[in-house]
Amino acid sequence: MPDLKNDRYLRALLRQPVDVTPVWMMRQAGRYLPEYKATRTQAGDFMSLCKNPELACEVTLQPLRRYALDAAILFSDILTVPDAMGLGLYFETGEGPRFTHPVRTAADVARLPVLDPEQDLGYVMDAVRTIRRELAGAVPLIGFSGSPWTLATYMVEGGSSKAFTVIKKMLFAEPQTLHLLLDKLADSVILYLNAQIKAGARSVMIFDTWGGALSGRYYREFSLHYMHKIVDGLLREHEGRRVPVTLFTKGGGQWLEAMAATGCDALGLDWTTDIGEARMRVGDKVALQGNMDPSMLYAPPARIEQEVETILTAFGQGNGHVFNLGHGVHQDVPPEHAGAFVDAVHRLSRPFHQ
Amino acid sequence: MPDLKNDRYLRALLRQPVDVTPVWMMRQAGRYLPEYKATRTQAGDFMSLCKNPELACEVTLQPLRRYALDAAILFSDILTVPDAMGLGLYFETGEGPRFTHPVRTAADVARLPVLDPEQDLGYVMDAVRTIRRELAGAVPLIGFSGSPWTLATYMVEGGSSKAFTVIKKMLFAEPQTLHLLLDKLADSVILYLNAQIKAGARSVMIFDTWGGALSGRYYREFSLHYMHKIVDGLLREHEGRRVPVTLFTKGGGQWLEAMAATGCDALGLDWTTDIGEARMRVGDKVALQGNMDPSMLYAPPARIEQEVETILTAFGQGNGHVFNLGHGVHQDVPPEHAGAFVDAVHRLSRPFHQ
Repeated sequence: MPDLKNDRYLRALLRQPVDVTPVWMMRQAGRYLPEYKATRTQAGDFMSLCKNPELACEVTLQPLRRYALDAAILFSDILTVPDAMGLGLYFETGEGPRFTHPVRTAADVARLPVLDPEQDLGYVMDAVRTIRRELAGAVPLIGFSGSPWTLATYMVEGGSSKAFTVIKKMLFAEPQTLHLLLDKLADSVILYLNAQIKAGARSVMIFDTWGGALSGRYYREFSLHYMHKIVDGLLREHEGRRVPVTLFTKGGGQWLEAMAATGCDALGLDWTTDIGEARMRVGDKVALQGNMDPSMLYAPPARIEQEVETILTAFGQGNGHVFNLGHGVHQDVPPEHAGAFVDAVHRLSRPFHQ
Repeated sequence: MPDLKNDRYLRALLRQPVDVTPVWMMRQAGRYLPEYKATRTQAGDFMSLCKNPELACEVTLQPLRRYALDAAILFSDILTVPDAMGLGLYFETGEGPRFTHPVRTAADVARLPVLDPEQDLGYVMDAVRTIRRELAGAVPLIGFSGSPWTLATYMVEGGSSKAFTVIKKMLFAEPQTLHLLLDKLADSVILYLNAQIKAGARSVMIFDTWGGALSGRYYREFSLHYMHKIVDGLLREHEGRRVPVTLFTKGGGQWLEAMAATGCDALGLDWTTDIGEARMRVGDKVALQGNMDPSMLYAPPARIEQEVETILTAFGQGNGHVFNLGHGVHQDVPPEHAGAFVDAVHRLSRPFHQ
């Protein structure tokens, strides 16, 4: 990949040799960085930041100026998709995201449009193009979407949830309505991610934040089935290059074999799964991304380095590891701890690639 | 066990033959029952209900009057233990439990007393004796405690938590302080559960609600290690009868082998784990309790029955299954759905025991 100065991230996802283990952090552009807070204040609210391609580009690049990260990830939110479908996203202080028009009935589902990404989410595509231009080949840009199940939880509940009461009622009492919704979302996500790839994303990731709220049987039927459909519908090659796709189900450690069987290139692991055991289970099929507990960034740098070494040792010698946290960076970690983490991955991983 | 009219629950925990699969529900005494709400109103607040042995007995027995349950569980709260250790438990509306004096330093840990259950938690022991008397041998009474790790999360955080920031800082930066706290809690829990057994509990269960917030490595070191210590310290025989002990780690499906190796009699499973796979992994060592998603009780009775059949089939023929939900009953399920669930387990499980 001669147009990329640093292609470790893509090589590791394809289980090709690298000099050191690549590293990035979920939610690396975020509130733990003072410069992020300044830009967000400038933008106004969170959605105004998402909808401003220049400022979204700025916050995407901020962590790369501080740390030797091996990938940039588009600054956006998974809920831009249901917002663009007309559900009326808004944020209530201390309450998280809410929708004015939740999806509750078969008629609500029938009314939902399938997304036209360049039309309905043009601001995301503009952000991708802007970031790709500003990156100037330094590192690859990751595009992303929420999984259909995860998006549906917000759309049906009308916002965040703990027990997922409303969507589980739909799942158990009216499964065909939920299947119609998930299928429509899968179609939209395919179009959305393919548009991100055409606009400049070199790899895409599907975040299934709430798949772990289901039993294994219903996870396969209501979440994984639709991620599989997306994997099948994605552009897997673009401009002559393979476009790796990563699936991440938080709490999905019991289902890695089924996830790997979708034909994706990599699995994200939260911190509850031992990465060495995961490699034994699925490492001949997919690369693995993860999986330090994000709370470890509260610890002193020496302790962080020790944990990095432990995870590198658990994964072991060879290809197919992208280092990351098991979930997003917490907003109150000291920025210098994130720096110690990134440096430790590069410094300590060299012996594992000889 | 001639003094028990129905000993299915104890027999199943010991993997002995039964006529039908025994069933009870975590949080079966709770707000989904109008008679519970009436008694709670009579008591005043939640803790006043816990501290009144007659009323605690009344709400313990209420679900047994409605449903053909195979066990009663002591009505109490896991946080009575840190309350009795002097932390000052109170409840803030909409905020859940809080402690006036959270445990943050080595000095705080050193100051904590080890519990004298009959002295410090006499109201619990009185409730156990009252319930045992009122049950008159109808079904066995289950005693319980929170796990040291789960109790410590509340004690260190000062209440409920999502990210467990404070205790994880302690875990990563000052592990020896946390170990001292957990060890002290394990000692208190041993005394507490043994006192419940002496007062009349026929079986005990340890609830590790938050063990699943840890990585496997730290789960073993900071949660399972101390549950193992408790299992080793419990009265395993009392009045000539085996006293079965059940461990339940919510989100612990990846660690069943390690949990079964503690020498406990049974493992509780949340709904994310397939009970058939769990049986293949550990069913020659322990009985299994679970594991229907509590949200299934929102569905119509016919759907609930279908799910019961699916779980019975997944477990398969033979001994060692106690039917339950994967977590507590939600407060807004229709009481008649819980009844349909209990009846379905008894009716549909008969063929699995022939």
